[in-house]
Amino acid sequence: MESLLNYITYPEDLRKLSVDQLPQLAKELREFIIDIVATKEGHLGASLGVVELTIALHYVFNTPDDKLIWDVGHQAYGHKILTGRKEIFDTNRQLGGISGFPKRSESSYDAFGTGHSSTSISAILGMAMAAQLNGKNNRQHIAVIGDASIASGMAFEALNHLGSTNSNVLVILNDNAIGIDPSVGALKKYLTNVKKGIAKDENIFECLNFHYTGPIEGHDLNALVNELDHLKLVAGPKLLHVITTKGKGLKKAEENQVTYHAPGKFDKLTGELQKKPVVANEPQKYQDVFGHTLVELAEKNKNIVGITPAMPTGSSLKYMMEQIPDRAFDVGIAEQHAVTLAAGMATEGLVPFCTIYSTFLQRAYDQVIHDVAIQNLPVIFCLDRAGIVGQDGATHHGVYDIAFLRCVPNLYIFAPMNETGLRNMMYTAQLGLNHPIAIRYPRGRGVQEKWQTPFEKIEIGKGRELKKGSEIAILTIGHIGNTVSNVIEEITEKEKIGHYDMQFVKPLDKNLLIDIFKCYKHIITVEDGSKMGGFGSTILELANELGRTQKIHVLGIDDIFLEHGTVEQLHEQAKIDHLSIKEHIKMLLNE
Amino acid sequence: MESLLNYITYPEDLRKLSVDQLPQLAKELREFIIDIVATKEGHLGASLGVVELTIALHYVFNTPDDKLIWDVGHQAYGHKILTGRKEIFDTNRQLGGISGFPKRSESSYDAFGTGHSSTSISAILGMAMAAQLNGKNNRQHIAVIGDASIASGMAFEALNHLGSTNSNVLVILNDNAIGIDPSVGALKKYLTNVKKGIAKDENIFECLNFHYTGPIEGHDLNALVNELDHLKLVAGPKLLHVITTKGKGLKKAEENQVTYHAPGKFDKLTGELQKKPVVANEPQKYQDVFGHTLVELAEKNKNIVGITPAMPTGSSLKYMMEQIPDRAFDVGIAEQHAVTLAAGMATEGLVPFCTIYSTFLQRAYDQVIHDVAIQNLPVIFCLDRAGIVGQDGATHHGVYDIAFLRCVPNLYIFAPMNETGLRNMMYTAQLGLNHPIAIRYPRGRGVQEKWQTPFEKIEIGKGRELKKGSEIAILTIGHIGNTVSNVIEEITEKEKIGHYDMQFVKPLDKNLLIDIFKCYKHIITVEDGSKMGGFGSTILELANELGRTQKIHVLGIDDIFLEHGTVEQLHEQAKIDHLSIKEHIKMLLNE
Repeated sequence: MESLLNYITYPEDLRKLSVDQLPQLAKELREFIIDIVATKEGHLGASLGVVELTIALHYVFNTPDDKLIWDVGHQAYGHKILTGRKEIFDTNRQLGGISGFPKRSESSYDAFGTGHSSTSISAILGMAMAAQLNGKNNRQHIAVIGDASIASGMAFEALNHLGSTNSNVLVILNDNAIGIDPSVGALKKYLTNVKKGIAKDENIFECLNFHYTGPIEGHDLNALVNELDHLKLVAGPKLLHVITTKGKGLKKAEENQVTYHAPGKFDKLTGELQKKPVVANEPQKYQDVFGHTLVELAEKNKNIVGITPAMPTGSSLKYMMEQIPDRAFDVGIAEQHAVTLAAGMATEGLVPFCTIYSTFLQRAYDQVIHDVAIQNLPVIFCLDRAGIVGQDGATHHGVYDIAFLRCVPNLYIFAPMNETGLRNMMYTAQLGLNHPIAIRYPRGRGVQEKWQTPFEKIEIGKGRELKKGSEIAILTIGHIGNTVSNVIEEITEKEKIGHYDMQFVKPLDKNLLIDIFKCYKHIITVEDGSKMGGFGSTILELANELGRTQKIHVLGIDDIFLEHGTVEQLHEQAKIDHLSIKEHIKMLLNE
Repeated sequence: MESLLNYITYPEDLRKLSVDQLPQLAKELREFIIDIVATKEGHLGASLGVVELTIALHYVFNTPDDKLIWDVGHQAYGHKILTGRKEIFDTNRQLGGISGFPKRSESSYDAFGTGHSSTSISAILGMAMAAQLNGKNNRQHIAVIGDASIASGMAFEALNHLGSTNSNVLVILNDNAIGIDPSVGALKKYLTNVKKGIAKDENIFECLNFHYTGPIEGHDLNALVNELDHLKLVAGPKLLHVITTKGKGLKKAEENQVTYHAPGKFDKLTGELQKKPVVANEPQKYQDVFGHTLVELAEKNKNIVGITPAMPTGSSLKYMMEQIPDRAFDVGIAEQHAVTLAAGMATEGLVPFCTIYSTFLQRAYDQVIHDVAIQNLPVIFCLDRAGIVGQDGATHHGVYDIAFLRCVPNLYIFAPMNETGLRNMMYTAQLGLNHPIAIRYPRGRGVQEKWQTPFEKIEIGKGRELKKGSEIAILTIGHIGNTVSNVIEEITEKEKIGHYDMQFVKPLDKNLLIDIFKCYKHIITVEDGSKMGGFGSTILELANELGRTQKIHVLGIDDIFLEHGTVEQLHEQAKIDHLSIKEHIKMLLNE
């Protein structure tokens, strides 16, 4: 059969097809996504699950004049392919290529940039209210949101507002019972009852004043087109409950939905994952060092509990959830709740390890201040994906945590340089600090052949002298210290260079720093984070307080949003890669 | 009749009474609260509304072994009086006195400190889960939360989690249809239908797997005691819907619930507000300068919209809501939604003024970064109550905003020194900046006899030289610049002192600062905010970048949580009051 997808560049092309042709297009679109993601990598399952929904939406609605927002955006690959980006789709998530998420600067069809969960209903309501004020009364507004995302507080706030307006908004609940990991919570159970037809009469969304329809089968293009056509005529807030299967159309992806959320390279026909070459003595991922160490500690310390907001796999809390299920909790996409839940547990003598990606802790900032730090409750925050994260891009880099956390009284901030540092700090923290602590570590792997080193207690607020020098002191925080160590090895006059792994952003090792300021002509600070208000800035504050006057060379991320690319490429952009650091040192040595 | 309250110091005393005596105690407790708040000021209406509920809870439950959390905490005065703090209740909200909110360090009966809304269910669930792990299976856990607070996203996250557990938690929905301002949203409408008996069969809370009872009359002690006694025996998550009247028992407070939320001094018998002495030419409150100026601008610029999360009165958005209701929106206690709603509106060419207290913007930090700044949408944030706020204390000081906002790319940060500065920046911003901006201003009054000055455009990133000097340059940001101006007037060698109102934390006026660094021996920075990462810190960063070496004296708030007291007292504690600044200057002059 002749390809339909070949003839489609924009939705206007799609709209020339008959409804009967749409299933064929769905098949082609699914194959196109699989073909490219199989070799170029990216998020797979979510987009496969909404192939029919994507086609139906662009078929029925007059995008981009009608506004369409994809919550989170993992599922928007089909949307991108049908809206002018088919030819460049193979640049997805690469440096200079298209973003893995909807992005306003990329296309007028991307009505609102997404990445973090549960923003779509607020944003689409803003557009719908604007349409009312601007007299665009016939414009349609659609937000597509998953069942895991709609359970997040922000989405509820938006539903609560939307339901009290007469705004012309269609919320499509894409119910596949899974986010990245399986959905949790009372709402999920309720939706399951709805699907089984055993929920009672009044629907929870009807309680919030929505016109509710569904559940309908989300892979039935006829049903979707008919229902969307009908809903175009319904005024006010509407919710359409659509049932889809994540990974639809690729058997292995349907069967292993967590793995195939972002499977890496795979065989496009069988779905078989491409075996990664075995690297001898490859270091462990930090997330797994965290995950396994937590189990190790929790087996001995019965007060330890683990909490993740919807990232059991990504954070590796799954190990504890599997092995000690009564003390490890996935609370869903609910960062705010996760933090205050941990605070509540801490009041009762439990030792909560609350693991959250750095970028998502932004969602619980007030809870860190108001519920944890003011009360000085010893919650242990394990901030995974701190620093530049790579292909997920601007929405996901964890580069602000040092800046936004270090102004918070009572809170310690620690960054391990390696696996042992992470393990020892986790060990030390669970012994009891009488303070909350944030432990930040990056995406990716550590540096040690063996990570399971014996536990040693870390002295709070102490940095480490890794190497004495005579002219230049390099102060590093966290994993990026390894890059600096490697650089120093390549410097001819390496005896001139001192290297200090400060370990703590807070409390700072003041005594060590007093010595360093005295002994060195030049100071360089290096961090995988924002320079504005970051680690370098705290060193500046102390130097100023001490009346020291040498210039401090602050290396870190400038005051811009870095886009997507590999971590290495983005470190280069930020000039905190091996070569840039080396050149900076050589420049100072030549002075 | 003999006083019952006289004999009650702790709930154990209360539990010796018969149920028949409780209404008499309620009457006395209400009078006690009115008596003291009438002269000492504080929050009135919320506590009057829960007098019976407070008595019933401590009568039925075995506090403090059973855990009781008051959401927000405005309503906890009766609780404080009945739990050991009757004798010191007249020190409420004063420096060194008891806090206006529940506080763990104050009493074992305050199971969790509150202040910000909607944290109670998360915290109580943490405690209940801890009880299960610790084998305390008979312990009761109660969270009291208002209908405005339960509509906030964080509360929904907690309900969603709690409903999927078998934790022994009783959520008491204190439904009085008002927060500080009247409640809004679809849930509020639904609850109204429930009260009227016109909601359909299945209850929204039952959908979330709660055992629901109610609505019951919240001023009927018999009914309350009976129902709570009964609920003690019900396992798992429970929600009791209680109907109360805010301000109950003081006619004027019942009739004017917004005014009597925190009425200032009043006549304890009639409720009549004490007339404040007329101060000739008293400056306007900043919030009112904002509120009136917004109306003035919005009347000319039809694209302007106003958004507040539940603070129409406190932020003075109420003026626009009254005069231009179709473009001014109270979205309820939903800071996250408010910010992203504004972002959505901005994509459509509207000019959103989103007014949020500085301390509450902490709730929407991720939305500022992810939905506004990354997309560089020109949302105008008006951050009221920035800096030390006074009697509300540690939970409410708005002292972190500079630190947590200045690391965010694309975002401008401005602080007006006076009313004209605020007006002119609002005027300038609505002309179009192509960037988001945060305008921070304090609680309280400005400094001008006449605030309604003609609009002038402000040049972005420009500071103002207020006074040239020869030795010491004082750089200030915002309203506290007035204190510095006044101090300078009192210095004998005032010709030595220069004063610069920097206006922008970001972008910084680099050219002006280059000149300042060249011309002055000493630099002092003064801010009403955290020193860690704040305005002084950004000056340090630039000075370091420029290779300037003079020591910079950073005045601001140290790395501790300041408690409650008057703004003046707390400025003294932080050494940013008139006298402290003067002494600092004199110390430098004597060097």
